[in-house]
Amino acid sequence: MRLSELSERSGVSTATIKYYLREGLLAPGRRISATTADYDEAHLRRLRLVRTLLQVGGLSVAAAGEVLRHVDDDSLGRTFRLGAALWALPHPPAPDAEEGDEAQVTARREVDLMLEELGWESARELAPVNPDHTSLVEAVASLIRLGYPWNAEMMTPYARMMHQVAVHDLDFVETYPSESERVEAAVAATILFEPILRAMHRIAQQEETVRRYGIT
Amino acid sequence: MRLSELSERSGVSTATIKYYLREGLLAPGRRISATTADYDEAHLRRLRLVRTLLQVGGLSVAAAGEVLRHVDDDSLGRTFRLGAALWALPHPPAPDAEEGDEAQVTARREVDLMLEELGWESARELAPVNPDHTSLVEAVASLIRLGYPWNAEMMTPYARMMHQVAVHDLDFVETYPSESERVEAAVAATILFEPILRAMHRIAQQEETVRRYGIT
Repeated sequence: MRLSELSERSGVSTATIKYYLREGLLAPGRRISATTADYDEAHLRRLRLVRTLLQVGGLSVAAAGEVLRHVDDDSLGRTFRLGAALWALPHPPAPDAEEGDEAQVTARREVDLMLEELGWESARELAPVNPDHTSLVEAVASLIRLGYPWNAEMMTPYARMMHQVAVHDLDFVETYPSESERVEAAVAATILFEPILRAMHRIAQQEETVRRYGIT
Repeated sequence: MRLSELSERSGVSTATIKYYLREGLLAPGRRISATTADYDEAHLRRLRLVRTLLQVGGLSVAAAGEVLRHVDDDSLGRTFRLGAALWALPHPPAPDAEEGDEAQVTARREVDLMLEELGWESARELAPVNPDHTSLVEAVASLIRLGYPWNAEMMTPYARMMHQVAVHDLDFVETYPSESERVEAAVAATILFEPILRAMHRIAQQEETVRRYGIT
């Protein structure tokens, strides 16, 4: 398809598509004349992923480029392509991190105990280099600093529930036929499912509150 | 306790505590002389909640004040105090909302079907005024606009899992003895559990990826 059709089908203006091409977020089309190039379904799909990263994920163009380089690196196996792409996503800062304070030491110990209890072997191995592990330790440390009792025993049921969610995520990803589509779907799912899960969680809290206490 | 002890036990500087007092985020202590006031455990707890709202939740002082007015309004029943406080929390903006486009109409219909399928009666009743319902519709509309097939059938299992999470949340809240502590714990839980759940979700995705595909 021509640039104009790519624009129409994706809902992205031709000027914006040209910008993404210049920034390397989108591979060049197949050149068919000095001024015309041909684009295919893979371009359309990639454009959707770029919009997801920028508009929903809130990534900068540079950060999106980094995620996409990992997505496209087929010298890596699926786990590493996915992992590298997910780890390049923004990790919300820990607002009151106090490196090595007592709350952080406790949080790290309880998270480690939780992973042991869950039998999540690769999560334990990857912990030292996994930014999501750092985010979890910091979030738990915040709870502890605020005086909430929080330990492995309380966390483990939550982690089991989030594992059920992850099983569903990967089942969804596996419905896509090609490896590159699956890696793209996995990244999109992470970014797009998070706001859905957060909204469902809050609605479920409200529903459960009304069930327990009525509308009073 | 004196201001200095409140500061020490909460880890919040006396200057910051005085600022919260001026802004009405913290109730005045019991005055015992022209220059001295006495503070109690409720002040300490409230200070923790204020820090949670500002530092972890990222709320402005004005927004935190609004949440706390609902938390403190004991003319309301628990459901309304909780609901009003939760709804005053920030709702992430829908980055590409296109009011009334086809994707939004589809998303709204599928969310409605999901709530019907789940039998979440009060969520259905509250939908027109619930900002979390709007967030959910917008997040689903984003998925649809990006070309992902997403419908009630795919959403319902996720909502059931998030309901399990909410049941655990409220069980935790119910461990607190007084009504005001419970409302405070519910607000803190929403703000503090969201980053924990997000990190657990990502770690679980990685764990499940390695289990299915190995480290390759």
